[in-house]
Amino acid sequence: MTKTKAPEDLLKKLRTGHRFLVTSHINPDGDAVGSSLGLARVLKRIGKGGVVWSRDATPKIYGKLAGSERIHVGEEPPNGFPQAFDAAIVLECPTLDRTGLEGSLKELPIINIDHHLGNEQYGKVNWVDTGAPSLGSMIYRLAEGLMVDLDPDTATCLYLTLVTDTGGFRFANSTPQAFEAAAALVTEGARPDLVAQWIYESRPESAVRLLGEMLQSLELHAHGRLATAVLSHEMLEKAGASNADTEGLIDYPRSIAGVDAVALLRQVEDGKFKVSLRSRGDIDVEKVARKRGGGGHKNAAGFLIEGKSKAALKEVVAALEAILE
Amino acid sequence: MTKTKAPEDLLKKLRTGHRFLVTSHINPDGDAVGSSLGLARVLKRIGKGGVVWSRDATPKIYGKLAGSERIHVGEEPPNGFPQAFDAAIVLECPTLDRTGLEGSLKELPIINIDHHLGNEQYGKVNWVDTGAPSLGSMIYRLAEGLMVDLDPDTATCLYLTLVTDTGGFRFANSTPQAFEAAAALVTEGARPDLVAQWIYESRPESAVRLLGEMLQSLELHAHGRLATAVLSHEMLEKAGASNADTEGLIDYPRSIAGVDAVALLRQVEDGKFKVSLRSRGDIDVEKVARKRGGGGHKNAAGFLIEGKSKAALKEVVAALEAILE
Repeated sequence: MTKTKAPEDLLKKLRTGHRFLVTSHINPDGDAVGSSLGLARVLKRIGKGGVVWSRDATPKIYGKLAGSERIHVGEEPPNGFPQAFDAAIVLECPTLDRTGLEGSLKELPIINIDHHLGNEQYGKVNWVDTGAPSLGSMIYRLAEGLMVDLDPDTATCLYLTLVTDTGGFRFANSTPQAFEAAAALVTEGARPDLVAQWIYESRPESAVRLLGEMLQSLELHAHGRLATAVLSHEMLEKAGASNADTEGLIDYPRSIAGVDAVALLRQVEDGKFKVSLRSRGDIDVEKVARKRGGGGHKNAAGFLIEGKSKAALKEVVAALEAILE
Repeated sequence: MTKTKAPEDLLKKLRTGHRFLVTSHINPDGDAVGSSLGLARVLKRIGKGGVVWSRDATPKIYGKLAGSERIHVGEEPPNGFPQAFDAAIVLECPTLDRTGLEGSLKELPIINIDHHLGNEQYGKVNWVDTGAPSLGSMIYRLAEGLMVDLDPDTATCLYLTLVTDTGGFRFANSTPQAFEAAAALVTEGARPDLVAQWIYESRPESAVRLLGEMLQSLELHAHGRLATAVLSHEMLEKAGASNADTEGLIDYPRSIAGVDAVALLRQVEDGKFKVSLRSRGDIDVEKVARKRGGGGHKNAAGFLIEGKSKAALKEVVAALEAILE
């Protein structure tokens, strides 16, 4: 397998600097939080100062990662900015504006570390490896390059990025490289059982109740190949749920044997629904969404539809049945 | 980490024999099916004949493993038994009677390969490694010992055993050794995304509907530390579900943040419930179950209770609140 090493000019920049700003993207996910905290800890171990700065707050489920309580959150720069920093290290952002902080960050030399296709190479130093299963796996290799031994807390930060970015080792990016990094990080003290508990066994009660409500609306069509479900304001109210609780619920109808496409209609206001579509393989739901003013990818797309629940659902079913034939 | 090699006497037995019977335990799980099929394929690659014999049928979700359709199922021995076989290789059975076939198997020399504590060393050759994350990971090492290159189908059989035995890399046995074996097997062509689809995205519609019904009965007690739910005959009927669909449903209330103990009451007949208990850490639910004529382990136990749904639930809640104080 291919596996790029951290480039020498990057290692040199880190070795010669004294204090770094580490940042990632808005709406931080596990990879953003874990790789930022992991990198800050790696830098500390080679005697460098560092501040992690994130425009948006850290999701609660990542709150057990060591150092998460010290992340500087918001648009206001941290103390001493920019003079006190040698460079801003930007993680997991194909473009600088993904940080939500580009206005400020421009005042510092930028180090760009990313694994996204189409990264715009906006840094003074750029390390982009589109084959890396998570950004955190690149930070692990960076630590190798810097010859830093990891402590259990750092290993945990980086291990978590593998779990969240590979969907718990269920996505196609669960490569040999992902498993090798996991082996090394668990050897250094990461605890897969604890990380799984944080990520998969810490759901809000309201989200679990909302799942129960949503499943009451489950319907199968097209000889079981199409599943639909609805999330109405009434259901959210009954479950004591907020919009954040709707995340990931579409995975449940999708987990039914034989289902190749799913449509979830979420009420946004009276007579208006956001339709989320998922599909497997060659079934192109983006086409369906685009025709109706929406967009997305082949296997995950969405659009808005107006009308009463029943009529909207009927229209969506007809559109999907047409492409499932 | 410790990692025992396949012993030389075992390798020799396999190299010198011509035809083997491969078997595992009753109610086969992913490790039983995957390691049996994987071993049969490894033997074939070194020119040996083999038959996989299982007393019980292969669960449908493992039906995509190569060779699963050729497993000999039932109590009746396969053709040519016992003369046509040099030995019976028994996988994942701490005692021979776990096969459900001990009467017949005794007619052959036994090779015992297992990873359970307390294995009774009932074989002529015994290889027991209690540190192995799955039996399939031992078969992988056996293939290494025999210097057999794996094909993608064999790698998939063995990779699946890692997924099922580590709970998708979420249990504490997700060791460096487990991840290293996964890395090697994915390198040889196992597909984590496909295996995850078979195991986690092939649920019967009835099981998903039953989850929806069960969640309607969700209650939290003891300041959110105790979750309870009920599965009544009425719910099963409404969901079109059978008892098999109840498996794993207890994991959903358990996934709520802050929940340390769960009780699921499943109606077995009018006025009688099977109570399943789960807990985290030091909370000992076995004590609660034993007091009421049941049993289990500290973190997973069960017992039977008589009475109407409401009264039974009240009694269970009181018993668990007492140990949560």
